[in-house]
Amino acid sequence: MEDINKINDIKNLLLNSIEEYKDGTSDIHPYDLAKELEKLRDLDDKEYEYVCKRIPSDLFAEILCEMPSYIQEEIAEVISDKKIATITSKMDSDDASELIYNISQKDEEIAQTILSKLDDEDKQIIEKLNSYDDHEAGSYMQSELFSATLDEDIGTAIKRLKSLKEEELLDNIFHVFLIDKDKKLIGAVGLEELILFDRQQHFREIPQDKLINYSCNHKSDISDAVEMFTHYNLSALAVVDEENRLLGRITHDDIHDVIQDQDTKQLYSLAGVNDDAENEESVYLIGRKRAIWLGINLVTAILASIVIGFFDTTIQSLVALAVLMPIVASMGGNAGTQTLTVTVRQMALGEISYQDAKKTINKEVIISLVNGLIFAFIIGIIAFIWFKIPLLGLVIALSMVINLLSAGFFGAVIPILLEKFEIDPAIGSTVILTTVTDVVGFFSFLGLATLILL
Amino acid sequence: MEDINKINDIKNLLLNSIEEYKDGTSDIHPYDLAKELEKLRDLDDKEYEYVCKRIPSDLFAEILCEMPSYIQEEIAEVISDKKIATITSKMDSDDASELIYNISQKDEEIAQTILSKLDDEDKQIIEKLNSYDDHEAGSYMQSELFSATLDEDIGTAIKRLKSLKEEELLDNIFHVFLIDKDKKLIGAVGLEELILFDRQQHFREIPQDKLINYSCNHKSDISDAVEMFTHYNLSALAVVDEENRLLGRITHDDIHDVIQDQDTKQLYSLAGVNDDAENEESVYLIGRKRAIWLGINLVTAILASIVIGFFDTTIQSLVALAVLMPIVASMGGNAGTQTLTVTVRQMALGEISYQDAKKTINKEVIISLVNGLIFAFIIGIIAFIWFKIPLLGLVIALSMVINLLSAGFFGAVIPILLEKFEIDPAIGSTVILTTVTDVVGFFSFLGLATLILL
Repeated sequence: MEDINKINDIKNLLLNSIEEYKDGTSDIHPYDLAKELEKLRDLDDKEYEYVCKRIPSDLFAEILCEMPSYIQEEIAEVISDKKIATITSKMDSDDASELIYNISQKDEEIAQTILSKLDDEDKQIIEKLNSYDDHEAGSYMQSELFSATLDEDIGTAIKRLKSLKEEELLDNIFHVFLIDKDKKLIGAVGLEELILFDRQQHFREIPQDKLINYSCNHKSDISDAVEMFTHYNLSALAVVDEENRLLGRITHDDIHDVIQDQDTKQLYSLAGVNDDAENEESVYLIGRKRAIWLGINLVTAILASIVIGFFDTTIQSLVALAVLMPIVASMGGNAGTQTLTVTVRQMALGEISYQDAKKTINKEVIISLVNGLIFAFIIGIIAFIWFKIPLLGLVIALSMVINLLSAGFFGAVIPILLEKFEIDPAIGSTVILTTVTDVVGFFSFLGLATLILL
Repeated sequence: MEDINKINDIKNLLLNSIEEYKDGTSDIHPYDLAKELEKLRDLDDKEYEYVCKRIPSDLFAEILCEMPSYIQEEIAEVISDKKIATITSKMDSDDASELIYNISQKDEEIAQTILSKLDDEDKQIIEKLNSYDDHEAGSYMQSELFSATLDEDIGTAIKRLKSLKEEELLDNIFHVFLIDKDKKLIGAVGLEELILFDRQQHFREIPQDKLINYSCNHKSDISDAVEMFTHYNLSALAVVDEENRLLGRITHDDIHDVIQDQDTKQLYSLAGVNDDAENEESVYLIGRKRAIWLGINLVTAILASIVIGFFDTTIQSLVALAVLMPIVASMGGNAGTQTLTVTVRQMALGEISYQDAKKTINKEVIISLVNGLIFAFIIGIIAFIWFKIPLLGLVIALSMVINLLSAGFFGAVIPILLEKFEIDPAIGSTVILTTVTDVVGFFSFLGLATLILL
């Protein structure tokens, strides 16, 4: 009952917004409509389909690019190929190519059908954008931009901008990109500069020092573009080919999404989770990827158990060792995770690099040595009071220092080495570290116990 | 020797750039100069001071706001209060107030001296901005903006913009904010719209549907502003007071920094690291904060040991239990961390909320149950083969299912509950979860062993 009310509320809100949109009186952002539509989809498939069929194509173009990829993948099951083609033609090229890519992930044939219904230019652009690798700057650019040549006067260019905007072919404009007759990029002029010039003036008259000269190659890694945006506070960045010909631009809101995705990936990788899989709707896909990681962890855990197995007679003769032994491993794991996380993050933010490696490792070793000594003292006293065996206190204290020290050292060294070999330091470093802290923890504690106590 | 060459290289680069800057021919971004200056500071204090004294104030204003807070804190030890005052007056108000705040953290008196050297308006603005709480939108805004009234003609406003820009009082302009005579915000017009209108036209003539109506209250949480930027792809956002009077604006590059800081905080919190402390230079401060977290973890680990202690006679009679017991706890910890991390991140990204709690918990319980069954089977077989005790395989398999199931359940429930009680779900949830998975892991394994095997 509650659900039916909710469904009706959302449906009415969406249908009203559609009417308002048609009248030009809508004040709800497409993002918010996308979220409502998602909710409706979760609650009732049929009603979702009903509403989808009623959304006009230009509005749908704005809504659909705010929706997660698993919904884009299935959109062909809800609305006709022809309507999807119309929607695609109304999208910015980066959003359009993403939509076609997502649909092709589910059904390559439908994606081709939709492409065939587009005009040649749109089709070529989408195919071009989708030919880039995921990590290449080109796959994030849009070809829609505002450009002009040096010989043109500003007034003519603005008239062109006006008509492009009226046809809704251009949006989110921050610069005019100046190009020569071969489409080679000369530089960009911010609108805040352009607006100060007279319309009769020619672009040639804009002084050199007002030009923005940043650009990035279409094949370069998107993280290079991200760095330029972060360091130089850019609003948009020109994308050029090997001959410096202007191909497109990347805007700050695209970069914003890239950063958020990178951060999610980093966080997930450290926790042994795959970011792509987690964005899927299927519990099966999510669970399978997580299982792989748990499987790797099982191997690590068994390794640690084998180490413990070496000392079974020691444990048998003093069961207090079994009681205390997880403490050393756990403290090492935690201290190591602290170091690892900080190192991975600071490398990602560009705050430390391979050149600073020695400085970082020194810092981490000092911190872990001092903390190791502090917690060695505390746990030594506790173990002594608990089991009334002074030497047991000494054993756990010594192994605490050893394990925290190695946790700090390896927590810093592992990600630095992985980065050196161009492996993403967030992926896999946790499991290597845990193996180290578990093995060192159990081996040092039980080994020292065998030497000192027996 | 290598260091001396390096010092000289950096010093020469910086001194050259200073000369080029004075001639107006510099093409190095202040960000890159800031990074070089930081390197020089690390290598040689004296040379750093020498170069700092030679940087002209307007360039220093641009460099200093790219430097980390611990360098800003100490800047008064390197250059005179008078120069810092000049530098401050050349900064945007948000950067200026941050600089004064950082200096005051080290020495309140010097901060006051610098403030007293500023003109009254600058001083008031800085004091106003620094009166906001860290989480309030007001503390991220700058008061420099381009505004106009409805009665003004566009040409006059653009002339004003031109002279403000020539005096370097205004930069990074995306909109003109329209206000009434009481400074109340009417709306914003993007430059890409404004440029299309004739200069003779009045702002009153700009149609309603070209106005951007988003704004945020100066006392509202910065995360609300972040959401508006992410959802609606904004470039800048007006900040208003309770009477809707325009106070300032937040730009996308500020929000970008906020997002990166939030992500760092989230990642660090989950790993038991304090983000503020890690930005300090002092190893002592960093180590102390980490020790607090390790101390909490020690209590957790001892709790787990107490649980093991209950079963000391069981372990004594079958030492294989001691060998195998870390496996169950470790797998639970890992599975729980997977769930916890995904839940925390998706809540932060607004993808799941308290209303979806049931759906999220269901999903996580299903995944952990299935993975629990898979790994129960695997570890059951391994334990049986290893120790040749069939019932031991059964015990570890059962406890694996129990622990992975509780890991999935609590990994989802803990952050959702913390969020419900308005506690940051990233902070503290890891330690609560580890306690659960350790205690449940050891208790179920050793408890079942006592029941079934003995």
